[in-house]
Amino acid sequence: MATTFIVNVQKDSKEYALFSDGVCVSKTHFTRVDGECSLRDSIDGAQSGKVLSQSEYENAVTYAAADASSSIKKSRLPEVTYVVIRVAVPGNFFQQHQQITPDYRAELEKSADSAPLQVVPLMREIKAVSSIFPQAQMHAASDTAFYATLSAAARESGISSELTKTLEVYRFGINGLATASASARVHRVIGRDPEKSIVCHIGETVSVSAVSNGTAVDTSVGLSPASGFPIGSQAGDIDAAALLKIMRHKNLRPTEAELYLDSSCGVRAMAGTSDLHVLLKKISQNDGHASHALELLVYKIQQSIAASTVSLEGLDVLIFTGTAAVRSPELRFEILKKLKHLNILIHEERNNMVIGKDGVISQRNSPVKVVVLKSDEISEINAVVNQNKLTEAHKTSAA
Amino acid sequence: MATTFIVNVQKDSKEYALFSDGVCVSKTHFTRVDGECSLRDSIDGAQSGKVLSQSEYENAVTYAAADASSSIKKSRLPEVTYVVIRVAVPGNFFQQHQQITPDYRAELEKSADSAPLQVVPLMREIKAVSSIFPQAQMHAASDTAFYATLSAAARESGISSELTKTLEVYRFGINGLATASASARVHRVIGRDPEKSIVCHIGETVSVSAVSNGTAVDTSVGLSPASGFPIGSQAGDIDAAALLKIMRHKNLRPTEAELYLDSSCGVRAMAGTSDLHVLLKKISQNDGHASHALELLVYKIQQSIAASTVSLEGLDVLIFTGTAAVRSPELRFEILKKLKHLNILIHEERNNMVIGKDGVISQRNSPVKVVVLKSDEISEINAVVNQNKLTEAHKTSAA
Repeated sequence: MATTFIVNVQKDSKEYALFSDGVCVSKTHFTRVDGECSLRDSIDGAQSGKVLSQSEYENAVTYAAADASSSIKKSRLPEVTYVVIRVAVPGNFFQQHQQITPDYRAELEKSADSAPLQVVPLMREIKAVSSIFPQAQMHAASDTAFYATLSAAARESGISSELTKTLEVYRFGINGLATASASARVHRVIGRDPEKSIVCHIGETVSVSAVSNGTAVDTSVGLSPASGFPIGSQAGDIDAAALLKIMRHKNLRPTEAELYLDSSCGVRAMAGTSDLHVLLKKISQNDGHASHALELLVYKIQQSIAASTVSLEGLDVLIFTGTAAVRSPELRFEILKKLKHLNILIHEERNNMVIGKDGVISQRNSPVKVVVLKSDEISEINAVVNQNKLTEAHKTSAA
Repeated sequence: MATTFIVNVQKDSKEYALFSDGVCVSKTHFTRVDGECSLRDSIDGAQSGKVLSQSEYENAVTYAAADASSSIKKSRLPEVTYVVIRVAVPGNFFQQHQQITPDYRAELEKSADSAPLQVVPLMREIKAVSSIFPQAQMHAASDTAFYATLSAAARESGISSELTKTLEVYRFGINGLATASASARVHRVIGRDPEKSIVCHIGETVSVSAVSNGTAVDTSVGLSPASGFPIGSQAGDIDAAALLKIMRHKNLRPTEAELYLDSSCGVRAMAGTSDLHVLLKKISQNDGHASHALELLVYKIQQSIAASTVSLEGLDVLIFTGTAAVRSPELRFEILKKLKHLNILIHEERNNMVIGKDGVISQRNSPVKVVVLKSDEISEINAVVNQNKLTEAHKTSAA
């Protein structure tokens, strides 16, 4: 029986869980929204919503590990055997689930210069967890592995092949674990596995993935997780000339420019909040900036859904997943109301009833089914080791 | 009776024409393809295909002006009254047709730093033409004016509103003159003005425009004409993180990076040619690099057509215009064969028969009509002054 400690650190959230084989024993979820840190929904709900200081948030892993240890004692479980940590670092090397060996850490260090925003917090977390659970074997659950199947036309951009290869300028995607999780669960809700589906993930990050018979064929996310949509404090896709103009105007070097696009833009910069719930409230109070930010985000998601039909040559099922998409009928309605021409017919009442749970929200006669599906990223991360999803080369060491 | 000299200088072509009111009296067209300069199809065909030296290409305007003067003499026309020059410079100021006054030149000079690739060759051309025709009134035909009608969601990106305004980070579009010209002519071919149309312009540059009842509602082209698709030697849209990675790797400053994306990428860097005719020939000879370059270009055009249906909430007519689109049934077929799910049904035989001329290439029962339309950019530029398309503020001075 394996005891597994799961680490899922994102830009503005940290999630930790303890699994005994396939069963989640405890979970802690730390968030930072508009600069305010809090501890949300642990598995028994006892600590729900507690406000944290910045330093408590920084040291979340210590708190989570103590919580896990007390669960281990209480449930008389074996000590932690595996630690599995979600990794979303651009690069071919990181686009597979694998054991975190000294070689892996060396590769991470090599990537710190070109992807500091993804690598630096991850290395800090790996270091902290391995000192807390020194006996555990550590694995990386790649959040980009799901997109390793993309064709060259979907993966590459219009630069020379030599530079593409040398710098690994590919669309690596993101939200692969959540997208795979939702994709695998659609059968339960509609009774079949769709041939052509688009998974629209709206949570802390947003991504639109085209999935053909369970395999990814395209993603809205480019080289870096910061590409794509203007969500949170990130700009999303931006014109090269616009970026260079900003760099000249603000006298930014590349690393500073990357930080600027990641932390000083997006819905937050446009509307003063990165919380979609707050944004919708502001809109109901006739806040023009909030309306503009939502219009921009929604328009870009709509365009991405339409563009994603190309690699599939059609669409059978549109899946909404991710916290914001699962919880907000308003947001889903805004996106869907202009997509009738893609044969997507939303059922307004059903849509309004599906909040925080799975459900079908399209009309009975809608050629494209629209499904809301909770994704279970944490279980998907756990499955990487416990359902043997490691790549062939790494399977033996985890067995 | 007005005699008008038209100047249309693009990245790798220069076109000049002499109009007597609405009638084109002479035309010269200089091109530079894969570094080779030539003089193509003057109106009587006499000089067709003549190879030119680099310096002859640089001084094309002198040759064209001499040609125009001899036409004036031969046809006993009045001296040149107006010079109209196509302008494709990013910026709100340049998004309108207007007279080129000393103030206009000052605005151009101010933009030279932020858009050197567009401004520097244009200023050189303006200077040369005004010294050749010192008596003529000079006007700018804005190639972006057609896109001034875009909504905020279509025009803006995910940065703060303040920065958007200060730096004028908007989608200005390009090919507005050609797109407007094709859009105005569709009636002749299908017997009606479509409500919802998409204009796919494939020439020296590529753009996809969504047009609602004759008015532009979206464009694939961002802030700079170099955005969008990997055509010629330009990269087109590229991930911000990829651009910053290239800048670090090659140690490029912003201006150098802009030049690199404009002149060392695209189909040319991927396949060794920027001539789509040569590219198609290479593909027929099983050249893998050429196939990849075309696949990438075609895929991005397909995605853009699909995305463009969002602002229109549907599609009635898809219009192909621009030299490459009008001349190449193969290219059109590659784009259309995967768009059946958008109700676009191509008629292969008709498509093969429409080469270098107007025509309908969709099946009779295709819900979306597909039309090939030659665009007449030069006449559209002439019309700016001679059909009084100047903005209100500038009408009087041109009257």
